[in-house]
Amino acid sequence: MIKACPFGTHRVMEPKGTMPQAAQKIDNTMTIADNELLLDVMTLNIDSASFTQVKSACNSDVAKMEEMITGIVSERGKMQNPVTGSGGMLIGEVKEIGPNFPDKTLKVGDKLATLVSLSLTPLKIEKIKNINLSNDQVDIDGQAVLFESGIYSVLPADIPEKLALAALDVAGAPAQVERLVKKGDTVCIIGGGGKSGILCAYQAMVNAGPDGKVIVIEYSEENAKRILDMNLAHHVIVADATKPVEIYEKVKEITGEDVCDVVINNVNVPNTEMSSILITKDDGIVYFFSMATSFTKAALGAEGVGKDVQMIVGNGYAKNHADLTLGIIRDSEVIRELFEKLYV
Amino acid sequence: MIKACPFGTHRVMEPKGTMPQAAQKIDNTMTIADNELLLDVMTLNIDSASFTQVKSACNSDVAKMEEMITGIVSERGKMQNPVTGSGGMLIGEVKEIGPNFPDKTLKVGDKLATLVSLSLTPLKIEKIKNINLSNDQVDIDGQAVLFESGIYSVLPADIPEKLALAALDVAGAPAQVERLVKKGDTVCIIGGGGKSGILCAYQAMVNAGPDGKVIVIEYSEENAKRILDMNLAHHVIVADATKPVEIYEKVKEITGEDVCDVVINNVNVPNTEMSSILITKDDGIVYFFSMATSFTKAALGAEGVGKDVQMIVGNGYAKNHADLTLGIIRDSEVIRELFEKLYV
Ligand SMILES: NC(=O)c1ccc[n+]([C@@H]2O[C@H](COP(=O)([O-])OP(=O)(O)OC[C@H]3O[C@@H](n4cnc5c(N)ncnc54)[C@H](OP(=O)(O)O)[C@@H]3O)[C@@H](O)[C@H]2O)c1
Ligand SMILES: NC(=O)c1ccc[n+]([C@@H]2O[C@H](COP(=O)([O-])OP(=O)(O)OC[C@H]3O[C@@H](n4cnc5c(N)ncnc54)[C@H](OP(=O)(O)O)[C@@H]3O)[C@@H](O)[C@H]2O)c1
Repeated sequence: MIKACPFGTHRVMEPKGTMPQAAQKIDNTMTIADNELLLDVMTLNIDSASFTQVKSACNSDVAKMEEMITGIVSERGKMQNPVTGSGGMLIGEVKEIGPNFPDKTLKVGDKLATLVSLSLTPLKIEKIKNINLSNDQVDIDGQAVLFESGIYSVLPADIPEKLALAALDVAGAPAQVERLVKKGDTVCIIGGGGKSGILCAYQAMVNAGPDGKVIVIEYSEENAKRILDMNLAHHVIVADATKPVEIYEKVKEITGEDVCDVVINNVNVPNTEMSSILITKDDGIVYFFSMATSFTKAALGAEGVGKDVQMIVGNGYAKNHADLTLGIIRDSEVIRELFEKLYV
Repeated sequence: MIKACPFGTHRVMEPKGTMPQAAQKIDNTMTIADNELLLDVMTLNIDSASFTQVKSACNSDVAKMEEMITGIVSERGKMQNPVTGSGGMLIGEVKEIGPNFPDKTLKVGDKLATLVSLSLTPLKIEKIKNINLSNDQVDIDGQAVLFESGIYSVLPADIPEKLALAALDVAGAPAQVERLVKKGDTVCIIGGGGKSGILCAYQAMVNAGPDGKVIVIEYSEENAKRILDMNLAHHVIVADATKPVEIYEKVKEITGEDVCDVVINNVNVPNTEMSSILITKDDGIVYFFSMATSFTKAALGAEGVGKDVQMIVGNGYAKNHADLTLGIIRDSEVIRELFEKLYV
């Protein structure tokens, strides 16, 4: 057993010298180094941007999707979508623990969700057992390796595994909302009807409080209605976030010229940067959680309309994000019910 | 003369409904709407990431670069690099002012630098007169249009035009450093030897003060030496920022395990996200000014190593950024001398 790099660089095959996430190909041999963890994988939760891309490239044909996913993993040694660059996460059971893996409380047989992206996780798929087209989950027989620096959450006993997996996939988002939204703020959640959007809307309602205003922008009537029924926003706008001028006008009808203090972008489609920027007030904050965000479109877009807004890249990790997110599932009966229906 | 959209959407040709920046093609007819400004253009300052791409695609052959630049502008109606998505800015002389253009103090004949990106500015090139391979400037005969929401800076009398152009191109960067760096901070400027890097290093030295620590990472020995000679950093590391583990080790030699409070990324090459993240402490800030930044590489990279850092997208605009930047040129004799040599 070799002593290996905490960040997993010893598994990078090409290009040499990069980190596992940036690598084209990593070594997915399922023999662990002394600081690694070996997992038997049960389910992959493919990142929404990636899953959407695979699904549309395969015209929702499950057999083709299977082939595409298996192809990516055998070519790259990890489930990193070559178009979106994104990954997802997984749940699995601990099979073997390297003697120098830092967490000494972990035991063989523990079930956990990885909180690092699949885009850097060595993975081997033996068999795809099921692809769930509606919730981005893929049941497999397979194995994965977690590096020393990899983070994870032992699955709680009181929440179904697949529900926990679905919620933890986007745990970074509500955790940031908790930090960014202040009492009395006007907040807009773009794509607020989706998985991360619902968690963000819940947290925004809590933080903004009774004097705040939470607006959700959603594409489908159905998801929009759900948000109002669940009481997760003060206002819901049904509109296409790729149409900035239309979005701007509709938000102004609610907020007046002032627009929003904080805008959270949770969509899973490209070209929504400008909408996010236009509806944020000067000195306001845009938090881009969407993996379909383009850096240059955001940077140049704000400059192009002379908007002095702070734009934050959605870090998937924040301290205590797993606890905060599982806390929402425990506290909100309506969200738990919905997520059980959708993900379990 | 028609009354047109403040953001210039009336000039978008395809795809309809998008903003000028996102458009594939905009209308560069040089007849202005009543809220627009017409400029005779003297010099383009191509964004460094874009210029580097054009230069390398053409093997530094000036005739080929001329052809490529003219081709892009005639195809898209704007100088937006199709690979990097970025633009740059220009200096020009006011030729005609629409009666509803907001700034009533502006006069025909005033010289100004546009502070909105070329990636959304209607442009027509009649002739390329000179391409300066070493400073990204392209002298042309041509015309451009500024929208009602477009920002600009009238060129000051006490600073040579091309120097002002070069400095204003990156004015957003030192303005953000001024906001982000606190007294006593340990700051690292990656690509600190370049144009924006030098301005950021100067501002970081001012803000961090005598108890702070400013580290510059530079690729070339020459630029590194220049920074030390100019007294713009406490430490200079000569290294390749695309090699995260090497950078991490070298920074730790200076800072210890704590690494940096604030990291400013000013390089003009891809794949430096991970270096930036690894050398930032938990709760620290990474400011990505580089247009070669990949959103997903940053978002997933931080998660991948479990780093709770705030990552900010380099908005090209910040209130007073032009004044602050020209102020640095006025205050720092060494920077002014160097920039006169490089850009005038
Ligand atoms: N930064 C990170 O670390 C990280 C981690 C995980 C996921 N993510 C990203 O976060 C994003 C959201 O993930 P998720 O799981 O919450 O996805 P999701 O459940 O599929 O939600 C996406 C939502 O966006 C809405 N939407 C799509 N197109 C829209 C449009 N044009 N206008 C308005 N709304 C639109 C969808 O509405 P309809 O259903 O009506 O189409 C849906 O409600 C994805 O991009 C994902 O990749 C980021
Ligand atoms: N966000 C915005 O609104 C905005 C606006 C304007 C510009 N920008 C971007 O800001 C960036 C910097 O612009 P600039 O005009 O300052 O460019 P620049 O003068 O060319 O500076 C780039 C610096 O990065 C250094 N560098 C290149 N590769 C490196 C590596 N592998 N490791 C370490 N250092 C490396 C270069 O060193 P060598 O010279 O030794 O190679 C140079 O000193 C560009 O990406 C540009 O597109 C952003």
